Amino acid sequence: MTNKLYDTSLSLLTDLYQVTMAYGYWKAGMTDDRQPSSDSTRSGAAEKEAVFNLYFRKNPFSGGFTVSGGLTNVIGYINNFGFSRKDLRYLRSLTGSDGQPLFEEGFLTYLANLKLSCDIDAIPEGTVVFPNEPLLRVRGPILQCQLLETPLLNLVNFESLITTKAARLRLVAGTDTLLEFGLRRAQGADGGMTASRAAYIGGFDATSNVLAGKLYDIPVRGTHAHSWVMSFDTEQEAFDTYAEMMPNNVTLLVDTYDTLEGVKHAIQTGHKLRQKGYALSGIRLDSGDLAYLSIEARKLLDAAGFTDTAIVASNDLDEIIINSLKQQGAKITVWGVGTKLVTAYDQPALGGVYKLAAVRQANHADPDSDPAENHTAVRWDYKMKLSEQAIKISTPGIQQVRRFRDERGFLADMIFDEERSADDLNEATTTMIDPLDFTKRRRFEADQPFEDLLVPVFRGGEQVYDCPDIHATRARVQEQLAGLHPGVKRFVNPHTYPVGLEKSLHELKTELILKLREGGRE
Amino acid sequence: MTNKLYDTSLSLLTDLYQVTMAYGYWKAGMTDDRQPSSDSTRSGAAEKEAVFNLYFRKNPFSGGFTVSGGLTNVIGYINNFGFSRKDLRYLRSLTGSDGQPLFEEGFLTYLANLKLSCDIDAIPEGTVVFPNEPLLRVRGPILQCQLLETPLLNLVNFESLITTKAARLRLVAGTDTLLEFGLRRAQGADGGMTASRAAYIGGFDATSNVLAGKLYDIPVRGTHAHSWVMSFDTEQEAFDTYAEMMPNNVTLLVDTYDTLEGVKHAIQTGHKLRQKGYALSGIRLDSGDLAYLSIEARKLLDAAGFTDTAIVASNDLDEIIINSLKQQGAKITVWGVGTKLVTAYDQPALGGVYKLAAVRQANHADPDSDPAENHTAVRWDYKMKLSEQAIKISTPGIQQVRRFRDERGFLADMIFDEERSADDLNEATTTMIDPLDFTKRRRFEADQPFEDLLVPVFRGGEQVYDCPDIHATRARVQEQLAGLHPGVKRFVNPHTYPVGLEKSLHELKTELILKLREGGRE
Repeated sequence: MTNKLYDTSLSLLTDLYQVTMAYGYWKAGMTDDRQPSSDSTRSGAAEKEAVFNLYFRKNPFSGGFTVSGGLTNVIGYINNFGFSRKDLRYLRSLTGSDGQPLFEEGFLTYLANLKLSCDIDAIPEGTVVFPNEPLLRVRGPILQCQLLETPLLNLVNFESLITTKAARLRLVAGTDTLLEFGLRRAQGADGGMTASRAAYIGGFDATSNVLAGKLYDIPVRGTHAHSWVMSFDTEQEAFDTYAEMMPNNVTLLVDTYDTLEGVKHAIQTGHKLRQKGYALSGIRLDSGDLAYLSIEARKLLDAAGFTDTAIVASNDLDEIIINSLKQQGAKITVWGVGTKLVTAYDQPALGGVYKLAAVRQANHADPDSDPAENHTAVRWDYKMKLSEQAIKISTPGIQQVRRFRDERGFLADMIFDEERSADDLNEATTTMIDPLDFTKRRRFEADQPFEDLLVPVFRGGEQVYDCPDIHATRARVQEQLAGLHPGVKRFVNPHTYPVGLEKSLHELKTELILKLREGGRE
Repeated sequence: MTNKLYDTSLSLLTDLYQVTMAYGYWKAGMTDDRQPSSDSTRSGAAEKEAVFNLYFRKNPFSGGFTVSGGLTNVIGYINNFGFSRKDLRYLRSLTGSDGQPLFEEGFLTYLANLKLSCDIDAIPEGTVVFPNEPLLRVRGPILQCQLLETPLLNLVNFESLITTKAARLRLVAGTDTLLEFGLRRAQGADGGMTASRAAYIGGFDATSNVLAGKLYDIPVRGTHAHSWVMSFDTEQEAFDTYAEMMPNNVTLLVDTYDTLEGVKHAIQTGHKLRQKGYALSGIRLDSGDLAYLSIEARKLLDAAGFTDTAIVASNDLDEIIINSLKQQGAKITVWGVGTKLVTAYDQPALGGVYKLAAVRQANHADPDSDPAENHTAVRWDYKMKLSEQAIKISTPGIQQVRRFRDERGFLADMIFDEERSADDLNEATTTMIDPLDFTKRRRFEADQPFEDLLVPVFRGGEQVYDCPDIHATRARVQEQLAGLHPGVKRFVNPHTYPVGLEKSLHELKTELILKLREGGRE
């Protein structure tokens, strides 16, 4: 299922520099000659094939894990990729510093006929992931990889962020009910839609967002607003009318005027509902001291025989506040979370990046030969971005992530290069090296159970992955969290889950750093 | 111009409780009988007409002002309002706690035929506004007002937030160039689109987001990424190739390997460009100590005769960092701002609310009589939400905002009730009272120049407002900021711009609070 808001071509939803770089590659003759109508006037330089990895450097919210999101929307985006005539007309109108067109007509023709032919591998949505692991790996003509950078980052960054936030809230809520109420404060219409979807996947039970319910098959829930109460002469009349109109859906908001008086009015309405064979489902608190008020409200409800009536709470909640309320013995079993969830208030962006990891001349000499053979015919030129800070140095390679586990859960993740590491992975023992301290090593025997996390999603631009539905992805998140040691899941100073580089990839990286630092790039 | 991503009906983009409340009003017979195909089985209660005000309680970013945004998208939303057959099919599928349908068929028929007939008044986009001022005022059948709450809040909250952030950045940037680079970290596709638009209105010069450029007529700008440099054997080859391919658009990113070495390579490319009659437009720094590096880069460029080559900087910039860099004498004249702007990182949500302020039985006794007369025929029942915190108590009334000014700028804003305050506004002196301290008063003489900020946008559901284009709105922001005292615009402990209630509205509010606190609602 795709995010239906994106079921249109959004190929210009990218940074201009992706288009100018694409133009540069095209004009320098480094594009895929096999595209239909490619321009014959270009110079004879060979097409460049590239590999980019999309990853982040730090778990959000000072936490110990991240939950991957966005893949469903990435697939929708790629399947709808293509430049419309209007898109090209707009690009034609752009000019450079001399007032001349920025792009030659031949390039626009090239874009008009462009069909994506990339291979994309990805970690399935709803997987726990860690810094430096490639969530997506894109391999193909460098021009295509580049055009995709911005939209892939946009989609993966935001959905992973909200899925992670929701998973954290599920960890503190235990078996309580979690409702997402954030649409009014979300960052735009689609900010709200995407957040509703990601919240459900991360472990929420329902949303107030009706359109998200409709488009994504998420349960919807809702009560009423203060304005309902205010629009009647008395709170009692407001409650009674609501219950009379919708007896099978009665959760009453009790804090419009005075919360505990409101609870008493709700109880009166509850008695009337009972006489008609219905139940008072819940009351909702939206202000004040939620610990105190919920305890007092529970006493009133229980004393009146409404032991099954749930207490719902909302009002700028997040995982820290819910945790604190539970420690204070608050009698709340349904939590409505809005702003702090849908905007990821304490860290509203995940800093995912998309880095070039290898490049080579494409080899299409014999179109009838086995493509797999072609792939290995030309050696990769491994690439990395240097930085003064070790954490900002990218890792080269056609990366895959191997997750080792035992019967209790996940042990460690090892990033390896699909070509360079192949021989070492066949040895009796595999060595994994900490990327920030090469003296920290772990060894895994050949019989250690593992799973390789990235799976093929596109091959030659065609989708080869059967995307699980939203409910399966939601279940996956909880299975994944169960595989994590509790120390990794705690909020304060979480244990760092071990992620390292396979030894031969580590050696490749070290070699490249030394070469670049010694001026090998001059 | 509308935000084209919304040019489809998004009528279910609302909270479920808006729909259940609408159902409650319909079922209780409090809906507009004049709608086509209204259901005849409903009880005989009279239709309720309501007034809601949309406002926020606190300026974002600990600042002294806010810039209003979102009205263009609100207009697009309302003009496209309407429930599709698929929407109704979805609502029909919802069930209550007893497994029975949540909504009767007659209500769905009512929604299918519903045409908005509200009056909406709003403060034009790009106006400086302050806490408690109604940015939008919606008046009409309470069912309709309620359905609109969530989408109006979503659109106004987010766009006002980003417009305000951009305006703050413009204040520190002075005459420097500001570029918005945030798409990859924005909260979803539309989060990026809306932010690009709001950033331009708030004072940015251009965006990297090509689709925003196309749809909103915003200038687009871009350079190249580290990956361009990395995909060549040497940085010099990468720069030379870029300049050769696009000589009229050359800004080179110099920090892929070693920043100052990168500047020297850019200078070499600049010499080659000159020989061909082109110029090196700029170099870009994206990491490291931007103050130090820009000063050193400037020296190198100037020594080589490239005094016109601009230094562009990016890397997690915001108004505080730019201010600091300028104080350190950084030689940067073009600022690329991304994540911190488009997510409003330090406060990612504006807490706008939508509160019922008055209600009355609608009077449609004589459809041939003058509607203006009908409007005054039945007295309003003024409404407010109580709270223990004075700042959270809403203000009743059919509110309008009068902004007094003199030749130097804005003096104060006074909120008044269009009906209650009418007589007092005709007196020789008008009194305005501080809502948090009734002993603080200001008096304005009848000849004091003023402007009433809310303008009619919809009448009877029909648009009556000619929405200015994006460039006019952008110009308005700067005119508005010029009207503010510098103390209100400073970032640290800004002066509080005076906003008060007109005396008779203050008295109405006080009277209502006392009545509610004394249990008048029981």
